[in-house]
Amino acid sequence: MPRILWINPIATADYDRALQEWIDTAKRPETEVDVVSLARGTRHTEYQFYETLVMPDILHRLKRAEKDGYAAAVLGCFYDPGLRVAREITDRMVVAAPAEASMLIAAALGHRFSILVGRRKWIPRMHENVVNYGLEKRLASFESVDLGVEDFQKDTQETERRLTEAARRAIEEKLAEVIILGCGLQYGFYEVLQKKLGVPVIDVVLAALKHAELGIELRQRFGWGHSKRYDYESPPTAEIKAWKLAEQFPEMKGLWT
Amino acid sequence: MPRILWINPIATADYDRALQEWIDTAKRPETEVDVVSLARGTRHTEYQFYETLVMPDILHRLKRAEKDGYAAAVLGCFYDPGLRVAREITDRMVVAAPAEASMLIAAALGHRFSILVGRRKWIPRMHENVVNYGLEKRLASFESVDLGVEDFQKDTQETERRLTEAARRAIEEKLAEVIILGCGLQYGFYEVLQKKLGVPVIDVVLAALKHAELGIELRQRFGWGHSKRYDYESPPTAEIKAWKLAEQFPEMKGLWT
Amino acid sequence: MPRILWINPIATADYDRALQEWIDTAKRPETEVDVVSLARGTRHTEYQFYETLVMPDILHRLKRAEKDGYAAAVLGCFYDPGLRVAREITDRMVVAAPAEASMLIAAALGHRFSILVGRRKWIPRMHENVVNYGLEKRLASFESVDLGVEDFQKDTQETERRLTEAARRAIEEKLAEVIILGCGLQYGFYEVLQKKLGVPVIDVVLAALKHAELGIELRQRFGWGHSKRYDYESPPTAEIKAWKLAEQFPEMKGLWT
Amino acid sequence: MPRILWINPIATADYDRALQEWIDTAKRPETEVDVVSLARGTRHTEYQFYETLVMPDILHRLKRAEKDGYAAAVLGCFYDPGLRVAREITDRMVVAAPAEASMLIAAALGHRFSILVGRRKWIPRMHENVVNYGLEKRLASFESVDLGVEDFQKDTQETERRLTEAARRAIEEKLAEVIILGCGLQYGFYEVLQKKLGVPVIDVVLAALKHAELGIELRQRFGWGHSKRYDYESPPTAEIKAWKLAEQFPEMKGLWT
Amino acid sequence: MPRILWINPIATADYDRALQEWIDTAKRPETEVDVVSLARGTRHTEYQFYETLVMPDILHRLKRAEKDGYAAAVLGCFYDPGLRVAREITDRMVVAAPAEASMLIAAALGHRFSILVGRRKWIPRMHENVVNYGLEKRLASFESVDLGVEDFQKDTQETERRLTEAARRAIEEKLAEVIILGCGLQYGFYEVLQKKLGVPVIDVVLAALKHAELGIELRQRFGWGHSKRYDYESPPTAEIKAWKLAEQFPEMKGLWT
Amino acid sequence: MPRILWINPIATADYDRALQEWIDTAKRPETEVDVVSLARGTRHTEYQFYETLVMPDILHRLKRAEKDGYAAAVLGCFYDPGLRVAREITDRMVVAAPAEASMLIAAALGHRFSILVGRRKWIPRMHENVVNYGLEKRLASFESVDLGVEDFQKDTQETERRLTEAARRAIEEKLAEVIILGCGLQYGFYEVLQKKLGVPVIDVVLAALKHAELGIELRQRFGWGHSKRYDYESPPTAEIKAWKLAEQFPEMKGLWT
Repeated sequence: MPRILWINPIATADYDRALQEWIDTAKRPETEVDVVSLARGTRHTEYQFYETLVMPDILHRLKRAEKDGYAAAVLGCFYDPGLRVAREITDRMVVAAPAEASMLIAAALGHRFSILVGRRKWIPRMHENVVNYGLEKRLASFESVDLGVEDFQKDTQETERRLTEAARRAIEEKLAEVIILGCGLQYGFYEVLQKKLGVPVIDVVLAALKHAELGIELRQRFGWGHSKRYDYESPPTAEIKAWKLAEQFPEMKGLWT
Repeated sequence: MPRILWINPIATADYDRALQEWIDTAKRPETEVDVVSLARGTRHTEYQFYETLVMPDILHRLKRAEKDGYAAAVLGCFYDPGLRVAREITDRMVVAAPAEASMLIAAALGHRFSILVGRRKWIPRMHENVVNYGLEKRLASFESVDLGVEDFQKDTQETERRLTEAARRAIEEKLAEVIILGCGLQYGFYEVLQKKLGVPVIDVVLAALKHAELGIELRQRFGWGHSKRYDYESPPTAEIKAWKLAEQFPEMKGLWT
Repeated sequence: MPRILWINPIATADYDRALQEWIDTAKRPETEVDVVSLARGTRHTEYQFYETLVMPDILHRLKRAEKDGYAAAVLGCFYDPGLRVAREITDRMVVAAPAEASMLIAAALGHRFSILVGRRKWIPRMHENVVNYGLEKRLASFESVDLGVEDFQKDTQETERRLTEAARRAIEEKLAEVIILGCGLQYGFYEVLQKKLGVPVIDVVLAALKHAELGIELRQRFGWGHSKRYDYESPPTAEIKAWKLAEQFPEMKGLWT
Repeated sequence: MPRILWINPIATADYDRALQEWIDTAKRPETEVDVVSLARGTRHTEYQFYETLVMPDILHRLKRAEKDGYAAAVLGCFYDPGLRVAREITDRMVVAAPAEASMLIAAALGHRFSILVGRRKWIPRMHENVVNYGLEKRLASFESVDLGVEDFQKDTQETERRLTEAARRAIEEKLAEVIILGCGLQYGFYEVLQKKLGVPVIDVVLAALKHAELGIELRQRFGWGHSKRYDYESPPTAEIKAWKLAEQFPEMKGLWT
Repeated sequence: MPRILWINPIATADYDRALQEWIDTAKRPETEVDVVSLARGTRHTEYQFYETLVMPDILHRLKRAEKDGYAAAVLGCFYDPGLRVAREITDRMVVAAPAEASMLIAAALGHRFSILVGRRKWIPRMHENVVNYGLEKRLASFESVDLGVEDFQKDTQETERRLTEAARRAIEEKLAEVIILGCGLQYGFYEVLQKKLGVPVIDVVLAALKHAELGIELRQRFGWGHSKRYDYESPPTAEIKAWKLAEQFPEMKGLWT
Repeated sequence: MPRILWINPIATADYDRALQEWIDTAKRPETEVDVVSLARGTRHTEYQFYETLVMPDILHRLKRAEKDGYAAAVLGCFYDPGLRVAREITDRMVVAAPAEASMLIAAALGHRFSILVGRRKWIPRMHENVVNYGLEKRLASFESVDLGVEDFQKDTQETERRLTEAARRAIEEKLAEVIILGCGLQYGFYEVLQKKLGVPVIDVVLAALKHAELGIELRQRFGWGHSKRYDYESPPTAEIKAWKLAEQFPEMKGLWT
C-alpha cells in the first residue's frame, strides 16, 4: 500500500483538511496520502525568501519520509520548490511537484498551454521553470489574475470570474489549447472552468498526485526512478557524518545513517 | 474495465504474441490490452512511405476502436506515426504513442536523455518529433546501433552488446542521465541494461502502456482529454457524410455516423 | 521540355482550370505544367485526417509521374502535405511545395514575414512546418482571417478586405516586412494587396511553381537533387517487391520496378 | 536581357576570367553576367577589416550598377559582405550573395547541411550569418580544411583531398545530408566531390548566380523585390544631397540623384 | 592615467560638447575622455549605408588612437557600428560600445529589459545585435517612440513624454524590469524617467563609459583583453604592407607598422 | 569607502586568508573587502543539498550586511547560490556572484567561452545557470577535470596540468575564445594558463570582485540597482513581522525592521 507525503510548504494547517479531502476523492484506491504543512514558516511562498527559509525543514521532512517508508513525496507549491535538490537527497522515493507534473500532462493534451498565475511577480521565476523543464515551446502564455495566494479561496465567485476571463484571453488571443491553474490554492475551480471553456483545465494538485502515483508505479514495476548519475547524484552519507552536520543542524539528527 | 487497443503498424503477426505477453505482465490489473497488427502493409516502418501507406488503415482501425468502446489506443512505433491526426479524429478516446510517452516520462527522471536508435536514417525524423514535442533541450543525443528493426530480436546477445556500448557512450560522453530504447522491437532489454548501466532505461512499449493508462485515468476522473480546440479539432461528421467519403474509401464504412 | 505535375490534393476539379491558367501565365516558356486533382477524396484539406486519407493516392500519383518522365511535382496545399515522404520515394524528380517555397523566397526579401491563414485551427500545424524548416526566427506572426478554404474565392471583395486588414496588422504591429498568403486558394489577390501595402506579397502557387522550376534547373545543370542520405533515403524496391505490396495495395501496381 | 553584376570584392583580377567562364557555362541563356573586381583593396577578405575597408567602394559600384540598368548584383564572397546594406541602398535591383543563396537552396535538398570553410577563424562570423538568416537548426556543422582563400586553387589535388575528408566527417559523424563549399574560391570542386560522396555538394558561385536569376524573375514577373519597410528602408536622397555627401566622398558623385 | 577615445560616428560637432560634459561628470577621476566626431560623414547613422560609408574613417581613427596610447575607444552609437572589426584590428586597446555595454549591465539588474528606440526601422538591425550578443532571452521588447535621432534633444518635454509612455508599456505589458534608452542621443533623460518609473533606466552613454573603464581595469590588472583567437584574430601587418594598402587608402598611412 | 562582504558559503575558514589576500591585491584602492565563511555548514557545496542547508544562514548574513552598511555582497561559489533570492531580500545593496560576473565579462572578450569544472556532476546545474542568464549561445562547452572542490589547491601542479589540457581541448576542438575557471577554488591559476594558452582566462573570484565594484559604482553614481519590479520584488516587512518569523527562526532577529 504505497504512501505519499504531501508537503504543503507553509506554516499553517488552514488548508490541510480541504486539500486532504480534495486529494482523497481523486487518489487511486491503493494509495494513501498524508497532507502535512510545516511547523514553522510563512503563510504563503510568493517570495523566494519564504521558500528558501523553510527549504531545509522541507528537505529534512522529506528525508524522514523516505526513512519512514513513503513511496513518494509531493512538494505542494507551483514553484516546485526544491524539486531538484529533493531528488538529489533521496535514494528510492519518488519526488513529484505541481508545475512539472501539470506541464508534462498538458503536453500530451494539446499543442500549447497557458498558465494562470496570481500575480505578475511570480512569472519570471515560473517562466524559468518552464525553460528548465525544456517546455518553453509548448507555452502559449502566462496570464495574471492579480490575486495573492491567500485570496483564491476567499471570494470564490470573484476568483472564478477572473480565472475565466484570463483563460478566455489565453485561448482566444494566444491560441492556448490547455489551461493550467498555476497555484495549489486554485484547487476546486477546474471543473466549472472546463465546462465553460471547452478545453482541458489542469488542477495542479490533482496533476501532482497522479504524477506521484505514476512515478511510484514506474519505480516499483520497472525500477525507473530518478537517475542518480550527474544531476541527482546524492551527497555521500560518509561525508555528512564526518562533518557532523547533524550536530550543527539538529533537525538532521537520525536522517543520514 | 478500460480496454486499450495496441496497434502494431505492421502487417505481420509475428511479434503480436510476444508483445501481448510483454504488455500483460506490466499492465494494471483492471486494464485489458488487445495487441493487433495490420491486415495488409509492410513488415517494418523504417521508411516514411511504409507508414504513410498504411496510415488510413490505422486510422480506420482506431476510429472503429473508439466506436467499440476502447478507452485508449496506442500507435505502437517509435515514430509515433499519425499521433496528431489520431487525436484529431477521436472524440473521447485517449491516444498514446511510444516516443511521446517515453520522453515525457524520462523528463521527470533526469536532466537529459539519450535515444538509442537502429539506423541513422531514423534520426532526422525522430529529431523533429523531439523538437515538435518541445523537448529538444532535454535531449543529450541520438546514438545509432546500426541494426534494422527486424534485427533486434534476432541475435539478442549482439543486440544487447551494441545497446550497452551505445548507452555507455551516451552516458559518459554526452552526459545522458536516462536512456530510451528508441524502437518498439527493442523490448526485453531494458532490465539487463538498467542493471549494467545504473541509470533508468526506458522500454518504450511499457512507457506507452503506462501513458495510455494514465491518460484513461485522467480522462475518466477529471475529464482531461485531448483538447479539441485548434490543433486536434475534429473534421465535421456532416462534411464527411456530405462528401460520401465512405463510398470512395470503403474501409470508412460505418465509422463516421 | 521539362514537365511539372501540379497535384491539387482535393477530389474536385473545380479549381483546376483557374489554377492552370494562373500558372500558365507565370511559368517559364520552356516549362509545361499539368494541373491535376484527385479521383477520390475531400474538397479541402483543412483537417489532417483529410490529407492523411488521400496521401497514398497522392504518393502513387507522384511516383507514376516520375516514371512518366515529369521533372518535378508540386504538392499543391500550404500544409505541404507529405513533402518529406514524397522526397523519400522519388529518385530523380524534384518535389516542391507552397509553404517551403514561399518561406525560402520570403527569407531573401525581408527580415521577417507574416503568414495569413484562413482559420486559427491551421496555425499549430503550420507553425510546426515553420519550425521544422528551421525558419521560426524569420516568422513575424500568423494572422487569421476566419475564412474556410472554400470561402476565399466566393466573395472576393470580402476576402480582399480581410486579407488587407490582417496584412496591415502584421506590418504595423508585428513588423512584418513580407506577407505570405498562406493557402493555395488565396491565389489572385497578391497584386492588389502588394500595391496597397507597399511590401512584397507572396502568392504561394506562384512561389511553388518558381521553386519547382529552380529545382529542375539545379538538378539538370548541377545534379543538385534531394539528398538520398538519411532523411530521404528511399525504401528498397527489392523489399517492396518481396512483400508483394502491389498485391495488397492495387494502386501501387507497376510503380516500383 | 537582364544583366547581373558579379562583384568579386578583392583588388585583383586574377580570378575574374576563371570565374567569368565558370559562370558563363551555368547562366541562363538570356542572362548576361559581368564579373568585376575592385580597383583597390586586398587580395582576400578573410579579415573583417579587409571587407570593411572596401565596402564603400563596393556599395558605390553597386549603386552605379543599378543606375546603369543592371537587374541584379552579386556580392561574391561567402561572408555575404554588406548584403543587408546593399539591399538598403537599392530600389529595384536584386542583391544576392553566396552564403544566403546556398543555404536557402540546401534547405530544400536535405535535412541538414555542413559548410566546409578554409580556416577556423572564419567560423564565428559565418555562424552568425547562419543564425541571422534563421537557419541555425538546419546546420549540421562547420568543418575547417586549414587552407587560406588563396590556397584553394594552388594545389587542387590537395584541396580536393582535404575537402573530401572534411565532407566525409560531416556526413558520417554529424549526419550532414548536403555539403556547402563555403568559399567562392572553392569553385570547380563540386562535381567530383558530389560523385565521390553521393550527396549534393553546393558550389556557392553557382548558387548565388541561380539565386540572382530567380530574384530577377520574381521581381520582373511578380514585383517581389526586397521589402523597403523597416530593415531595408532606403536613406532619403534629399538628406544625402542636403549633407553634400558626394563632395565629401567623391566616389559618390552622380550616384544619388 | 588611462585615456578613452569616444568616437561619435557623425560628421557634426554639435553634440560633442554636451556629450563631453555629460561624460566628464560620470567618469572615474583617473580617466580622461576625449569626445571626437568625424571630419566627414553624415549627421546621424539611422541607415546602415551611413555607418558603412564612414566605417573606414572610424577604424583608422581607432587604430591611430591605439598608436597614440589610448587605453580604450568607444563606438558611440547604439548600433555598435563595427564593434567586431574594431576588436579585430586592435591589439591591446579595449573597445566598448553602447548596446553591448548596456545589455550586459542590464542583465545583472533584472530578469528582462526593454529597449526604447527612435524608429521602427532600427529594430531589425538592433534585434540582430541582441541575438548575436546571445541575450535574446533577456529581451522583453523593443518599443518605438517615433522620433528620429536628431529629434530627441529638440523638444525635450515631448521626448520625455514619449519615453515615459513607451517605458510604461514595456513594464506593464511586457514585464520589463529594466529600461534601456536605445540611442546615444537619448542622454539626459534617464534620471527623471528612473524616478517616475521606479525601475533602473540605462543611459547608454554612461553604460558604455563604465564598460570601457571596466575593460581597461580588467586588461591592466589581469591581462583580460579581447581574445585574439578566431573571431578577433588580427590581419597580419606584413600582408597589409605587402599589399601596399596605405598607398591605396591614404588615410591608412602610418597606422600599420 | 565602500565595503564588500565576501561570503564563502562553507563552514571552514581554511581558505579565508588566502582568498582575502588574493582579493586584496586586486581590489580598487577605495574598496574594502571582508572575506567571511560560515559558522556552520559543509566544507564544499558540490551538492545542492549542502547549499540549500546553509542558504538561510547566508541570507541572514547578507541581510545583516546590508543593515551594517555594506555596499555589496558576493556569494562566493560558482553555482551562484541564492543569487536571485539575495537580490529579492535586499533593498540597496549590490549582490554579485562568480558565474554571472565571469560570463558577463567573458561575453565582451570573445565570441564563445568554455567553463572548466571540477566534476561532471556540476554541469547540469551550471548549464541551467548559463541558460537562465540567457547566455547559452555564447557557451562553447563545459570541460571537466575530474577533481573535487577540495582537490584544486592540493597538488597544484597536477591541477594546472589538467586545467591546461581541458582548456586546450576547449580552444582547439570547441573553438572557445575565452576560458572560465568555473570554481572559486581554482583561484591562482589564471595567469600561468593565460600565458600558456594565449587567450583570456577568467579567475572567477576576481571577476566577481570587479563586478561587485562596478555594481557599487553604478548604483552610487546613477542609481542603477537591482530592479525591484517583478522578479526581485521584496517580501513586505510588515508581513514578516505579522507572521513573527523572527520568533520562529531566531537567526532573523533584528534583521527585518
